[in-house]
Amino acid sequence: MSEAAQTLDGWYCLHDFRSIDWSSWKLLTNEERQEVTNEFLGLLEKWNVTENDEQGTHALYSIVGQKADFMMMILRPTMEELNDIELEFNKTKLAEFTIPTYSYVSVVELSNYLAGESNEDPYQNPHIRSRLYPKLPQAKYSCFYPMDKRRQGDDNWYMLAMDERKEMMRSHGLIGRSYAGKVKQIITGSVGFDDYEWGVTLFADDVLQFKKLVYEMRFDEVSARYGEFGSFFVGNLLSPTKLDSFFHV
Amino acid sequence: MSEAAQTLDGWYCLHDFRSIDWSSWKLLTNEERQEVTNEFLGLLEKWNVTENDEQGTHALYSIVGQKADFMMMILRPTMEELNDIELEFNKTKLAEFTIPTYSYVSVVELSNYLAGESNEDPYQNPHIRSRLYPKLPQAKYSCFYPMDKRRQGDDNWYMLAMDERKEMMRSHGLIGRSYAGKVKQIITGSVGFDDYEWGVTLFADDVLQFKKLVYEMRFDEVSARYGEFGSFFVGNLLSPTKLDSFFHV
Amino acid sequence: MSEAAQTLDGWYCLHDFRSIDWSSWKLLTNEERQEVTNEFLGLLEKWNVTENDEQGTHALYSIVGQKADFMMMILRPTMEELNDIELEFNKTKLAEFTIPTYSYVSVVELSNYLAGESNEDPYQNPHIRSRLYPKLPQAKYSCFYPMDKRRQGDDNWYMLAMDERKEMMRSHGLIGRSYAGKVKQIITGSVGFDDYEWGVTLFADDVLQFKKLVYEMRFDEVSARYGEFGSFFVGNLLSPTKLDSFFHV
Amino acid sequence: MSEAAQTLDGWYCLHDFRSIDWSSWKLLTNEERQEVTNEFLGLLEKWNVTENDEQGTHALYSIVGQKADFMMMILRPTMEELNDIELEFNKTKLAEFTIPTYSYVSVVELSNYLAGESNEDPYQNPHIRSRLYPKLPQAKYSCFYPMDKRRQGDDNWYMLAMDERKEMMRSHGLIGRSYAGKVKQIITGSVGFDDYEWGVTLFADDVLQFKKLVYEMRFDEVSARYGEFGSFFVGNLLSPTKLDSFFHV
Amino acid sequence: MSEAAQTLDGWYCLHDFRSIDWSSWKLLTNEERQEVTNEFLGLLEKWNVTENDEQGTHALYSIVGQKADFMMMILRPTMEELNDIELEFNKTKLAEFTIPTYSYVSVVELSNYLAGESNEDPYQNPHIRSRLYPKLPQAKYSCFYPMDKRRQGDDNWYMLAMDERKEMMRSHGLIGRSYAGKVKQIITGSVGFDDYEWGVTLFADDVLQFKKLVYEMRFDEVSARYGEFGSFFVGNLLSPTKLDSFFHV
Repeated sequence: MSEAAQTLDGWYCLHDFRSIDWSSWKLLTNEERQEVTNEFLGLLEKWNVTENDEQGTHALYSIVGQKADFMMMILRPTMEELNDIELEFNKTKLAEFTIPTYSYVSVVELSNYLAGESNEDPYQNPHIRSRLYPKLPQAKYSCFYPMDKRRQGDDNWYMLAMDERKEMMRSHGLIGRSYAGKVKQIITGSVGFDDYEWGVTLFADDVLQFKKLVYEMRFDEVSARYGEFGSFFVGNLLSPTKLDSFFHV
Repeated sequence: MSEAAQTLDGWYCLHDFRSIDWSSWKLLTNEERQEVTNEFLGLLEKWNVTENDEQGTHALYSIVGQKADFMMMILRPTMEELNDIELEFNKTKLAEFTIPTYSYVSVVELSNYLAGESNEDPYQNPHIRSRLYPKLPQAKYSCFYPMDKRRQGDDNWYMLAMDERKEMMRSHGLIGRSYAGKVKQIITGSVGFDDYEWGVTLFADDVLQFKKLVYEMRFDEVSARYGEFGSFFVGNLLSPTKLDSFFHV
Repeated sequence: MSEAAQTLDGWYCLHDFRSIDWSSWKLLTNEERQEVTNEFLGLLEKWNVTENDEQGTHALYSIVGQKADFMMMILRPTMEELNDIELEFNKTKLAEFTIPTYSYVSVVELSNYLAGESNEDPYQNPHIRSRLYPKLPQAKYSCFYPMDKRRQGDDNWYMLAMDERKEMMRSHGLIGRSYAGKVKQIITGSVGFDDYEWGVTLFADDVLQFKKLVYEMRFDEVSARYGEFGSFFVGNLLSPTKLDSFFHV
Repeated sequence: MSEAAQTLDGWYCLHDFRSIDWSSWKLLTNEERQEVTNEFLGLLEKWNVTENDEQGTHALYSIVGQKADFMMMILRPTMEELNDIELEFNKTKLAEFTIPTYSYVSVVELSNYLAGESNEDPYQNPHIRSRLYPKLPQAKYSCFYPMDKRRQGDDNWYMLAMDERKEMMRSHGLIGRSYAGKVKQIITGSVGFDDYEWGVTLFADDVLQFKKLVYEMRFDEVSARYGEFGSFFVGNLLSPTKLDSFFHV
Repeated sequence: MSEAAQTLDGWYCLHDFRSIDWSSWKLLTNEERQEVTNEFLGLLEKWNVTENDEQGTHALYSIVGQKADFMMMILRPTMEELNDIELEFNKTKLAEFTIPTYSYVSVVELSNYLAGESNEDPYQNPHIRSRLYPKLPQAKYSCFYPMDKRRQGDDNWYMLAMDERKEMMRSHGLIGRSYAGKVKQIITGSVGFDDYEWGVTLFADDVLQFKKLVYEMRFDEVSARYGEFGSFFVGNLLSPTKLDSFFHV
């Protein structure tokens, strides 16, 4: 058996993608729509309080194309909280006008491939803590996709020795690092939680950087030989000021 | 032909995943919702009696993400009983507010890969009986996924000699054993019953242990080369005390 | 080109799987439901007459899990008759309360892999006739799955010499024969008719025998290297006496 | 680069599969249903005129199993005409009672694999013209399936030399020819038009010949190593005299 | 790691495929339908102004077969504009009568495989600018399909050296060039934006040229060994003069 990678695990994470049933939405009066929106804004306000208390974080993006109209990405210390938030949203009036199109359950993860040796408890390290329990940025764009490491014939990631995986992940990490300041990346692990092994969420103020980063990585052996990718979702920040026009009909 | 593995088979098992049509649910009055919930509680009560009589067992979990809102896992001595229970649920008022999203039909299974030699009837062995006819734990979290052993090119589990399979399953079992006390695992066989060959149901009080266990196993040759996995479902215990708030709108 | 297998072909066969829309079904009055059920019983009675006249046969099973609520398996001398029966069922009142979930079109098939040499017309052989034009048993359980022979890289069934295929099928047949009296198997060919190459329908009074048979066969080279399987459906006999409680709400 | 095959291309072809919403259909009065049917018969009459003018051809078959209730196969000189016909059907009253279940867009194709050398313009050859611009037969049965030539590892059709492909196609063609008088085959190319590379439509008065032909071909290297098949649809001729009982409820 | 290809990126692109709910559409009065159509024509007029201002471009095609009734292809300088246009369309009255069936998010892309060496800024080169910020032609036909470069066993595009890829792309480009004047091709990159790596949109006045081009390319190693294709959509120009009859019922 190959040596298993070790992980540090932070907040649990739910990506929740929804389409809007615009036909039904338009049947409401302006007052009714305002009421429904206000209820949702109240929910967002609660999430903001949690974020300010550093007990979680969240992001809201509109999605381009028919895969969804918007995405809620929510991080919390426990799986129960994610379930409660999902349930609370599902019981709002707004949820009656949304159609679930995709979701992803995972947990913020740092692997030991790139970690140096250390005797201290990593969970006490402030730098590591800021990555395990992050505050999601208000970047203009976000991109999400789930992925696996391939286990197929001669291309079987999990049969490689730890040293080989470490070396490849190091080279892979260098590409990521060259995008520092341009793309912020949150890796969440989902083995045992959802259908792929990881979720990747990217944030940037220049949407083209997503394409440049993912394409450059695709030529790197880790992705070229061992990456299996699910659906890609890309979207624009749905800031409070844009919410009004988003819901306006 | 390779020597076939032998199995001991216990109770039949139905995993039944459902989403709730919250929009319709909200159209009911409080009284109507209470009535519907009471009917379902009555069903649960009957299942409890069966469990107390050691004629079956069951578990109820809410599911995180859009794959389902809750899962009923039900074990009974016969396939007819599973069918009857499914039918009875489908005829309840609650079922009118649920949407079936996934199900799995299987039977509790112990394989002979890890068994020692013995002359006694295993079905009389109390330890084995407690595994074939288990009482499902009230753990805080549950995880379910179906799986196959791969038959692909050079990675064909069913073409391996019994000895090779035994050796690999032994090493695989050691990982599982190292999680004793943290994760309880129920293996159900579904060859001839459903689309994968096995269902795996995990129970734990720390949800992160699911990820650690499944990820560690993935580096083991049995999973790395021979495991094919279906969808993963993860959820929180839906205890009687939580049912009220779960259904409350 | 490899020598093609020859087949004997009997009655055409339609497997028709349906779910019931219980919410709508419950909206009917008892009288209306009785009327609907009676119309369906009348159809079954017609099918019984055909069966008694040895002009066809049929079976009715409830299905466990969400894939369907019941399956009708119908055999007739011509494809037109299958189409007419399907059309007649679709026009019944009961059909308005069912949702089609899966179907399979095939023809009872015997291959020449296991046949001895003979100069007589096999279609006149009473033993062969009883297999080509069978009367479906009223076994307690049924299992259905479609399958292909694999054509993939080095595992290409259709590139093997006839002798190799014959030898493997002989060994495969021995397993089947060891279940004689426990499992009755009907093979229907569907090349050119439906998406897989064969349908396999099993009947038994002990549902566990399905799992034992299919699992044991999976270690045999024919299945291990060359078998590709579709969805598995398992169910309980829906005898006339059970129909009443099945439809009762 | 391998030498590309050359094709002769005839009429454009739309296969349009539909299910009927029998529940809604039954809600109409007899008069309404007659009116709807008459409108559809009028459409068929227009198609007959086109066929008599040798400006196109069409076929109408009921389909066995749940994949569809009927198939319209329509050939015309231009893609616009196919689109117009599709649009015209979609705007009929009958279309309101149908559910689209599958369609296929292609063009009648003859490849140069089997062609001899010639200096004359093949589009002026009457024999070739009758195949490029055929009149569809009123055979009792029809079978449709789309297919690809495989490009996978060592089994890559498009990397073979023209001579190898020609030799294999010749042997493949011999099987087809041995069914002359029993099965009529129309090959339509769909590269650039639909998801597979070809559509195959078979016609016969003995439905078993579809199975015999496709199964025999599967042992031929062209299919065994290089054939990838989509869904198979099989059905019975829906002649004008059968249309009445087909739509009668 | 292989040397990554460099790209030049132009306008962002949304392909939006829709089916029409003709049954509901017919329930409107002529006046209502005219009003709905006028609103959509107003939207098109706005898009025309943008196109005249060289701030974007668009195309409208009806689609043959059941995959969609029409496609809107829209190019704009930013991802926000695509999202705004999509949102604006979704809020029109016409959208209430359409069903989203497929969409694709990408950006016009030129790769450096075929580029010569140069010291000047390519984004200032008028020829390159006309390709990055094109005006879509009003060709009679359009064809769209998404595609990947394969990463599978020995056929792994991303593990090839830059020189090998360049050589193959050059030969591939020669085929494309031989269709100059017959087929106009727009390549859009979608790595990080959608499920495939590229979208290919073809325009021609002879629909058969799509088939000839794609089929000829399939024998070229780039496609034969390394091409993975998604769904193909083909359609006819929906010019303003055809819109009236298109929507007329």
